[in-house]
Amino acid sequence: MHRDAMPAPLEPHGGRLVYNVIEDRDKAESAVRGLTKVEIEPTLGPDGAPIRNPYREIMSIAYGFFSPVEGFMTRNEVESILKERRLLSGWLFPFPLVFDVDEERFKSLGVKEGDTVLLTLKGKPLATLKIEEVWKLPDRKEFADAVFGTPDRNREVVKKRFDEKHPGWLIYRSMKPIALAGKITVVNSPRFKDPYGRFWMPPHVSREYVAKKGWKIVVAHQTRNVPHIGHEMLMKRAMFVAGGDRPGDAVLVNAIIGAKRPGDYVDEAILEGHEALNKFGYFHPDRHVVTMTLWDMRYGNPLESLLHGVIRQNLGATHHMFGRDHAATGDYYDPYATQYLWTRGLPSYGINEPPHVTDKGLKIRPVNLGEFAYCPKCGEYTYLGMSYGDYKEVALCGHTPERISGSFLRGVIIEGLKPPKVVMRPEVYDVIVKWWRVYGYPYVTDRYLKIKEQELEVEL
Amino acid sequence: MHRDAMPAPLEPHGGRLVYNVIEDRDKAESAVRGLTKVEIEPTLGPDGAPIRNPYREIMSIAYGFFSPVEGFMTRNEVESILKERRLLSGWLFPFPLVFDVDEERFKSLGVKEGDTVLLTLKGKPLATLKIEEVWKLPDRKEFADAVFGTPDRNREVVKKRFDEKHPGWLIYRSMKPIALAGKITVVNSPRFKDPYGRFWMPPHVSREYVAKKGWKIVVAHQTRNVPHIGHEMLMKRAMFVAGGDRPGDAVLVNAIIGAKRPGDYVDEAILEGHEALNKFGYFHPDRHVVTMTLWDMRYGNPLESLLHGVIRQNLGATHHMFGRDHAATGDYYDPYATQYLWTRGLPSYGINEPPHVTDKGLKIRPVNLGEFAYCPKCGEYTYLGMSYGDYKEVALCGHTPERISGSFLRGVIIEGLKPPKVVMRPEVYDVIVKWWRVYGYPYVTDRYLKIKEQELEVEL
Repeated sequence: MHRDAMPAPLEPHGGRLVYNVIEDRDKAESAVRGLTKVEIEPTLGPDGAPIRNPYREIMSIAYGFFSPVEGFMTRNEVESILKERRLLSGWLFPFPLVFDVDEERFKSLGVKEGDTVLLTLKGKPLATLKIEEVWKLPDRKEFADAVFGTPDRNREVVKKRFDEKHPGWLIYRSMKPIALAGKITVVNSPRFKDPYGRFWMPPHVSREYVAKKGWKIVVAHQTRNVPHIGHEMLMKRAMFVAGGDRPGDAVLVNAIIGAKRPGDYVDEAILEGHEALNKFGYFHPDRHVVTMTLWDMRYGNPLESLLHGVIRQNLGATHHMFGRDHAATGDYYDPYATQYLWTRGLPSYGINEPPHVTDKGLKIRPVNLGEFAYCPKCGEYTYLGMSYGDYKEVALCGHTPERISGSFLRGVIIEGLKPPKVVMRPEVYDVIVKWWRVYGYPYVTDRYLKIKEQELEVEL
Repeated sequence: MHRDAMPAPLEPHGGRLVYNVIEDRDKAESAVRGLTKVEIEPTLGPDGAPIRNPYREIMSIAYGFFSPVEGFMTRNEVESILKERRLLSGWLFPFPLVFDVDEERFKSLGVKEGDTVLLTLKGKPLATLKIEEVWKLPDRKEFADAVFGTPDRNREVVKKRFDEKHPGWLIYRSMKPIALAGKITVVNSPRFKDPYGRFWMPPHVSREYVAKKGWKIVVAHQTRNVPHIGHEMLMKRAMFVAGGDRPGDAVLVNAIIGAKRPGDYVDEAILEGHEALNKFGYFHPDRHVVTMTLWDMRYGNPLESLLHGVIRQNLGATHHMFGRDHAATGDYYDPYATQYLWTRGLPSYGINEPPHVTDKGLKIRPVNLGEFAYCPKCGEYTYLGMSYGDYKEVALCGHTPERISGSFLRGVIIEGLKPPKVVMRPEVYDVIVKWWRVYGYPYVTDRYLKIKEQELEVEL
């Protein structure tokens, strides 16, 4: 294919970019007048810690990150997703999006199908939900299993039964029993707090940015990490791989901002850490941009990669890099489950072809990569290869590179040690220290999650 | 395109691999019985230095490196090449291949069209030539200009008039006036001397090797250099670029062995220097192979790149990397003339589309790259970008990398200094020193060219 045949930005997933935001204040006021208010409540884990706030889904839906999804899903739509990971319109989509409330609260609201309600965040208006259906969630444990898979039913990629230690499974497990389905419209655009504001580039903004830069080949990088040099090299190599007949043009970093696993880096450090890479020249700013998506990560490895494909195609990327243990935690999934999806599909989930090959699939193309590690003999980060199914790669070099795991590195940092220059850029470490000082700890803790739930990323 | 849609090896250029070699000794003897002998003579430069030996073309034709070319060219075929760089069969091919003799010698031979002659090398039988046509070369200066181009006629890529300092132009300029055209058959397979033997993998062998290794994406690397780390990184990056949706599988190094420009590295060091990269683990041997082609390099930049495409497609590669100043010397061509050809064609040479796009063109695909240089801030070889026509790339990083030119490096070495580890692998330097001891100088000199002409790479 000629290299300019499919220049960035690609068309949005489903063909049309959703933008359900009323910006005109008068229009917004008349749209909400007299509506019943429904406060958006966080999902809580068994110990009461906030593990999700649906406001993030509301924002991502309304601003088009999840195009063509326009609202919370009906029972039929959720069933379609659990059967074959497709919306009722046929377009691929991996996760049920559910606005859940408990029974008593639902009764007290006195609303019914056909009504429109005003969703409030900390008491302030955020969005309207036009109730298309009120439905009852099935047993939540079974629901969560159906969302993520089980070792019996999904042998090709699920290695271990999901449980409460898996933050994504726990979100579905902890949902309240009544679902309000229907279209979402933001009626009160929130202002983003520092440092989030400068990374908030919803699809229509991000696509304009890509077009203005003249980028033709844009590789999306999923992150929930402060970048160490292994990540940086992965980005640099993946951008090259995507080119095919020349180096690609740019990396679009998209950080997932929301509730996370304790031990992950804090969101502010993730964003500013990636930003440091272009601020201090490790990427030329004409080849790198850092953006964010509001989403309480589900850690769904191949399924999460499908969501990432949707989001980043909507943001204007042409390619998406997938590495080892993509969006994973623990050893529930095969480390290369995502590569399996993007090269063979996941038949046990009803996905019979790779997402970019199937009808009503994605247009964004995968860049499948294994691990990189520093090889002292080569004096560079070298490729270790990957293997899944009957596909096996040998390493790029014949030496024995030093593998540095993210968890090991987090251990080094918490001991107060500055990682060596070959492991982390000093300017990135400075960002970690900056937010360490703010929160008293460099990583996500229950306390951080509570502060985050209280403060959120926005003001209304 | 699905990544396994065009696995290596691709079909040979023109559809069929040429292998005009009679291996059976009895058959060979009966084929040569009673034939008039024509000794293969080197082309000499104005100072009497050997600048070409047509035996190399004979070998490359008969063993299929130049498939579908089967012999030396007729006048019509040469005219077709000079008009649109195509054989009479329509397949792309860049250079006239001419077996030239002087008039007196031709008269003394007493041969005519329809006869078969036995070409001898240092008096020993090598190949037969079935004379299809005897034709007279035009004015050699005009001929050489027609082969390479002129700034007037080929403005898009030729920047300076060719002259006797250009070794390729000088070859055509120095040809004798009578051309014997016709099919070549090797009747006495030569034995290769050390170290050439282990690098001699003609297309049928190389293609089997690629298939046996299971390589799907094989990137050819053109070389007439002992590799410094810049070259190594170029190879490693280009192999990745070629993958498109994953890293490529292997690099096929193909060294051009023959008369070279004084100051170039000696052939033995080029081959063993590249070999050192896999021998000492900088490339895993399952991702790297070193081979050779006999050819007195024409330094024809975009035209030479077309020949390289032909050779490496025949050898089993799927991609060919092209860097800055590909197969160039001096500043006759634009530094990115080769990239121009592979993205736009060269209309002034009658090539209206890129070689891999045009009908009866190549199947091998380009990987177009600019320069790499070591960036001390990034701690790695970083990409500097390329630009030609209205296409411009920015550098990968925002720092100021240190550019090390090959000529500067050759200057360091001749001063007896071992290049720093970040510039050249110590094991590669050892190879240079080894051959320095043999020839008394690390680079090609007139003396080396004379020894090489005397000894050649083969024994009969």
